[in-house]
Amino acid sequence: MNTQQQKPYVIGLDLGGTNSVFGIVDQRGEIKATTAIKTQGYDKVEDYVDACVEALQVIIEQVGGIDTVKAMGIGAPNGNYYTGNIEMAPNLAWAHGTVVPLAKLFSDRLGIPVALTNDANAAAVGEMTYGVARGMKNFIMITLGTGVGSGIVVNGQVLYGCDGFAGELGHVIMRRENGRSCGCGRNGCLEAYCSATGVARTAREFLEKRQDASLLRELDPEKITSLDVSIAASKGDALAKEIYEFTGHMLGEACADFAAFSSPEAFIFFGGMAKAGDLIMDPIKKSYDEHVLPIFRGKAQFLVSSLDGASAAVLGASAIGWEI
Amino acid sequence: MNTQQQKPYVIGLDLGGTNSVFGIVDQRGEIKATTAIKTQGYDKVEDYVDACVEALQVIIEQVGGIDTVKAMGIGAPNGNYYTGNIEMAPNLAWAHGTVVPLAKLFSDRLGIPVALTNDANAAAVGEMTYGVARGMKNFIMITLGTGVGSGIVVNGQVLYGCDGFAGELGHVIMRRENGRSCGCGRNGCLEAYCSATGVARTAREFLEKRQDASLLRELDPEKITSLDVSIAASKGDALAKEIYEFTGHMLGEACADFAAFSSPEAFIFFGGMAKAGDLIMDPIKKSYDEHVLPIFRGKAQFLVSSLDGASAAVLGASAIGWEI
Repeated sequence: MNTQQQKPYVIGLDLGGTNSVFGIVDQRGEIKATTAIKTQGYDKVEDYVDACVEALQVIIEQVGGIDTVKAMGIGAPNGNYYTGNIEMAPNLAWAHGTVVPLAKLFSDRLGIPVALTNDANAAAVGEMTYGVARGMKNFIMITLGTGVGSGIVVNGQVLYGCDGFAGELGHVIMRRENGRSCGCGRNGCLEAYCSATGVARTAREFLEKRQDASLLRELDPEKITSLDVSIAASKGDALAKEIYEFTGHMLGEACADFAAFSSPEAFIFFGGMAKAGDLIMDPIKKSYDEHVLPIFRGKAQFLVSSLDGASAAVLGASAIGWEI
Repeated sequence: MNTQQQKPYVIGLDLGGTNSVFGIVDQRGEIKATTAIKTQGYDKVEDYVDACVEALQVIIEQVGGIDTVKAMGIGAPNGNYYTGNIEMAPNLAWAHGTVVPLAKLFSDRLGIPVALTNDANAAAVGEMTYGVARGMKNFIMITLGTGVGSGIVVNGQVLYGCDGFAGELGHVIMRRENGRSCGCGRNGCLEAYCSATGVARTAREFLEKRQDASLLRELDPEKITSLDVSIAASKGDALAKEIYEFTGHMLGEACADFAAFSSPEAFIFFGGMAKAGDLIMDPIKKSYDEHVLPIFRGKAQFLVSSLDGASAAVLGASAIGWEI
């Protein structure tokens, strides 16, 4: 047995705004052990890392100790692959307004190589390592969650750009006039329309502007979620279906522009919204075919992530560990 | 001397709709010999290649024979790097509606490796080999000519995508409502506004809509060119300046979206319009800063190609030869 074979596992950390979920994963994408802690409640990053390592020790022992672990991968908001830092993440108390060398902190504590990237890039690598993108060299991962994220793979490598932050496709401008305000401080971004919160916003707009009956009218408009829209649509509610058509139409328009950029062999959708299946995928495909430059027509597949939603983020993060 | 050192030259072919210009180029980008033939007037591609090779023999002898030539690079409309084919080029009689294996035809005749790509990608490689992009790993070349072309470089490599046709940034949609019709059959493309013909179109629109005096009113509106606008603007004509501001503003908006994609260290502009200098570059930079996602602000340089316009296309094509 060589050293490589003696280290059959990588650790994945899905660092979310609420929870930090760990998994120890083998090369086939099987999660051998898992644990989690709360992400918040720490003023200093060192305290957060201490708590993480304490929880990790338990599951590391379960798989045979740290000598069985090749590396660790972290998927985190504003994670920079080049530096291993989390930069100015607005939602993390211990990283707010500062630069946190998280990869180095974990590497120093665990004695293994640690790499870090943002969650959408981690999802792309996860899909390439364990999911529907196995064998693909050029694809675009689009994560439809609270926001819209993206991971762009070119020639088998994640596109990081000059600074590590390339692939912010949620913030391309889709409506240059009277565009919706976006959390980034600008107007008209894809994310303002096609994230889960964007869909809820579309629902409120449709309900206000129109008079037709809808199951959604039974709900408090301020509390409507994209899941409510999905449930109503699956019951045949016409207005709810139109909300998904509107959303999918814009995603198809956006993907048509993305094709002019990197001509991917596939667009892969991930996240809560992607679970709506044909409800969202059919309008995306229809709109893409209508809008894409003829030379690219029919070349890209439209796929939904094959990774289990609950573990996909951890798998994605862990996959970064194999690439070190 | 090893074999590599015995072959100090590459051939570049800039294959345009009117002329086919050849240059034999050394590693520093010096053109040692040059010649040209008309591109049209051949029904069959074999006849075109025969005429090319006949003209080439003369300059190949001038530099010491074919044994001094490492390879040949071709920059051509609809050129596909992966296949070496020209695919369905609408402006070439001998390639119209068909697929022409041009790289193979030249390679068979000359006995050297031949690579082919489209003109904008060739310009990007030329800039990376001989021009302002030397040492850069991530940049976007934007060619402002009759159309708007682009060559995207990621990790030091041209982005070709799954099919060889990635990087058609002239055809991202900038105006989704009431967008100008584009030669590609769709509406609102960047090219419909920011190409030389787009600028002439803007001039006609401005002259029609407005009443203020302008040097451009002395010209036949149907015959106005982007050069006329540039000359008027350089004389201080307010309306002409506004046309460039409008054009630059849109290019800046577009580049802001491109940054969200590949976060380049530079945008490099090439072509007749780029020669307008500050007249076009200042509004591009101003608009970019206004529109780009804060995380990318101040990271990208805005540069004009440093290659001599007359020889840049040949140099770009030749540079592809070094990459084989």
